[in-house]
Amino acid sequence: MDALTHHEPHQPGSLLSIQDLSVPEVAEILASTTRIAALSAAERAKLLAGRRVALLFYESSTRTRTSFELAAKSLGATTTLVSDKSSSIEKGESLKDTGLTLRALGAEAIILRHANSGAPALLARVTGLPILNAGDGMHEHPSQALLDLRTLLTRLALDPNTAHERSLAGVTVVITGDIRHSRVARSNAMLLPRLGARVILCGPEPLLPADALGLAPGVEIERDFDRALAIAAQATPAVMMLRIQKERLAGLELNLADYIAHYQLTEDRLAAHAPAALVLHPGPMIRGLEIQGEVADSPQSAIEDQVRHGLDLRTALLARALRQLP
Amino acid sequence: MDALTHHEPHQPGSLLSIQDLSVPEVAEILASTTRIAALSAAERAKLLAGRRVALLFYESSTRTRTSFELAAKSLGATTTLVSDKSSSIEKGESLKDTGLTLRALGAEAIILRHANSGAPALLARVTGLPILNAGDGMHEHPSQALLDLRTLLTRLALDPNTAHERSLAGVTVVITGDIRHSRVARSNAMLLPRLGARVILCGPEPLLPADALGLAPGVEIERDFDRALAIAAQATPAVMMLRIQKERLAGLELNLADYIAHYQLTEDRLAAHAPAALVLHPGPMIRGLEIQGEVADSPQSAIEDQVRHGLDLRTALLARALRQLP
Amino acid sequence: MDALTHHEPHQPGSLLSIQDLSVPEVAEILASTTRIAALSAAERAKLLAGRRVALLFYESSTRTRTSFELAAKSLGATTTLVSDKSSSIEKGESLKDTGLTLRALGAEAIILRHANSGAPALLARVTGLPILNAGDGMHEHPSQALLDLRTLLTRLALDPNTAHERSLAGVTVVITGDIRHSRVARSNAMLLPRLGARVILCGPEPLLPADALGLAPGVEIERDFDRALAIAAQATPAVMMLRIQKERLAGLELNLADYIAHYQLTEDRLAAHAPAALVLHPGPMIRGLEIQGEVADSPQSAIEDQVRHGLDLRTALLARALRQLP
Repeated sequence: MDALTHHEPHQPGSLLSIQDLSVPEVAEILASTTRIAALSAAERAKLLAGRRVALLFYESSTRTRTSFELAAKSLGATTTLVSDKSSSIEKGESLKDTGLTLRALGAEAIILRHANSGAPALLARVTGLPILNAGDGMHEHPSQALLDLRTLLTRLALDPNTAHERSLAGVTVVITGDIRHSRVARSNAMLLPRLGARVILCGPEPLLPADALGLAPGVEIERDFDRALAIAAQATPAVMMLRIQKERLAGLELNLADYIAHYQLTEDRLAAHAPAALVLHPGPMIRGLEIQGEVADSPQSAIEDQVRHGLDLRTALLARALRQLP
Repeated sequence: MDALTHHEPHQPGSLLSIQDLSVPEVAEILASTTRIAALSAAERAKLLAGRRVALLFYESSTRTRTSFELAAKSLGATTTLVSDKSSSIEKGESLKDTGLTLRALGAEAIILRHANSGAPALLARVTGLPILNAGDGMHEHPSQALLDLRTLLTRLALDPNTAHERSLAGVTVVITGDIRHSRVARSNAMLLPRLGARVILCGPEPLLPADALGLAPGVEIERDFDRALAIAAQATPAVMMLRIQKERLAGLELNLADYIAHYQLTEDRLAAHAPAALVLHPGPMIRGLEIQGEVADSPQSAIEDQVRHGLDLRTALLARALRQLP
Repeated sequence: MDALTHHEPHQPGSLLSIQDLSVPEVAEILASTTRIAALSAAERAKLLAGRRVALLFYESSTRTRTSFELAAKSLGATTTLVSDKSSSIEKGESLKDTGLTLRALGAEAIILRHANSGAPALLARVTGLPILNAGDGMHEHPSQALLDLRTLLTRLALDPNTAHERSLAGVTVVITGDIRHSRVARSNAMLLPRLGARVILCGPEPLLPADALGLAPGVEIERDFDRALAIAAQATPAVMMLRIQKERLAGLELNLADYIAHYQLTEDRLAAHAPAALVLHPGPMIRGLEIQGEVADSPQSAIEDQVRHGLDLRTALLARALRQLP
């Protein structure tokens, strides 16, 4: 149970933390995603026709913002974007007041990206609206974990329309890179083991503190990337690479060349240790840093699938938020 | 009559200054607002179907921009946003040429926020299009005054569907804070007395010069906030708080702690001097500076109502601009 | 043939360089533009109903971005804007990955503005999508050349619905200003002579190197603006003024007052040397620098026509990109 997200009961359609979802609820979201994807464009556009969704982005974003925006529009909803670049946010207005303003403007759900952990929970509490957490600080990015799940299930030829405690049995996912600062890693590490996956976190100590384990029971640490891949290859392997921010390496006195030597996902490394591994990356990726371009573009890369599943998955999250799940 | 807004006759659907509106015209806008609000979503979406509205924002804004945008979309209009963050404005293009460009692109009305007083009048003159002033420098914010009027009428159980010279008879509105730099105060101080309200401006000399009175006949100054509230309490009281920008206090050598001690709207101050006063704030507000959070959230606060009425009111302003008033 | 745009075959609906279009293809685009403009708004909105177009702007823009956006919306397409101000572009994501992400999000065509010459060709190659070049560095701005062509044909009472090698026979176009840095000049200088126009480039050496001729066969240089106008006046004259960026003059040790004296388009200069010349400017223009305000506002100015034709022309480019040319 995560203190940051549980100040008090919130709107049922909210998605603040991946922890809030029971496995049957995850299953329901997966099934709805497929049902919505099967609708004709015209049917889909009726689902949220005339409904209003606000996108409140305090941090920049391409894929998450665009994905939620296009998902909402495809369901017929009217969207409005408020970003820190051109709004009262600049003038020091509180998140609470921005939220109350959006509600008064008719927003029925708010998609929030914010630098502070727990901001979505605060917004849910003060507005009473369903809030979809589109990334809060280093805390959570629950829709990313769900789309990663759907990507895994689809690409590994498992059933993408449901979820149970053995859905990912026999699958080992290695998450490599800047775990410390990654809300993507955190949400995935909390979700995937509940569906039967083995999760191995991998990275040097400054980017992966030993106590990272405390946050996600059932998750292992293996600092040697080659060994982590080899362990995964004993099962059905997947490897999720995380973006490295050069500035952070410098701050942590980590050497970039060393990092690349030990942690870059290369064709050679993959061929040597886990030749069949599925490759994921939440993006934006820096080719030549955490991942070799050839790997990103190879057939075993699921990186574009992740984006595609993200769009579909978010239609279900929006329909769920507005109680219109088909 | 205001020199800045009257270089020459302009498009009848424009709203440049609140002074341009006769009391019967204000009444007509109020009545139309209610008529549009009573339409079904589908009927509303026909009102401006296929019409084009441009939003031209040289200053950042959340609520005004979003409010006009959602109002336009709810009437079926296509909107396009041009802001100083991503446009030729950066390259030094004049307001005139940006306006002519928007007209050539098919814009039939322009919503303008600009740092210079009189910019909307200039834009109206050069384009011949209806211009809605969404705030020009320290000059005017006429749609804000209209939405404040509708909020007052509604919350004080007066008739919100019309206006005449006695509409606000018996109502005293205290406007407190940085009057000097406030286009909201200016537009309200010009509108409310014409509808019968008594208006008291309140603030320390640097933020409220004695000659502020020259601009709005029938408006009083009372520098003691407690006394201003007490005077208002002898009638039907309302208090409108204005945002304080710390940078400005510093520039004026005003002490922040002193300002808060004398001018913050607190629960205690309200209880002591005008316990029944309706509380307004145009936003964005800084809780803990000009207003105590508890007051903003109390039942006597009309702050969210203001946002709601703003959305409705602006549908009427847009329909009026495009000659489609129902 | 332009090396930058021809790494390999690209999607037929792309418009990367004006060189890619044969004269019959130009004719087809002109004819389609007129056919689309003749449709009712309702018919037009069916043309690309449900299709998705992404606008990817790495440089700021008012008219080009708004023009493409409104053109797409008028055809019923859903648009999404990704700009460098609020996206993963900031985080160092490559153009390739941003393009692949937009494709995975369902974009069926991408409008790209980018500081690097050849970026649209790269994007076309990696995504396989039709790409419309909305300006790449100092390289090309092909939709601008097409809208300029339609403006010339319309204003000179020639046939705006077709194009052949004699369409502009007897027309001399003087392009004046910062030719060196102008993608607009470049695209026009490559297009107009193929339709029979005589093109004279005019400007001081630092802004118009002698080897500019190498890029566009059949184009002349005349450094004396008065003489260039006089030559044009012997035929049907048009003069296209380009924006001057003060910073660039300084960098080139060009004196602003000198530049204005010799190259500003004034009423006097026009009256003296080419009184009947049609005046064009791609915008944004700086009145008082490269052009006198009176000239821009005179009846012989086609500057607003250019914007209008741009909107129409871009509907045809979008319909062509998505294979829905009526």
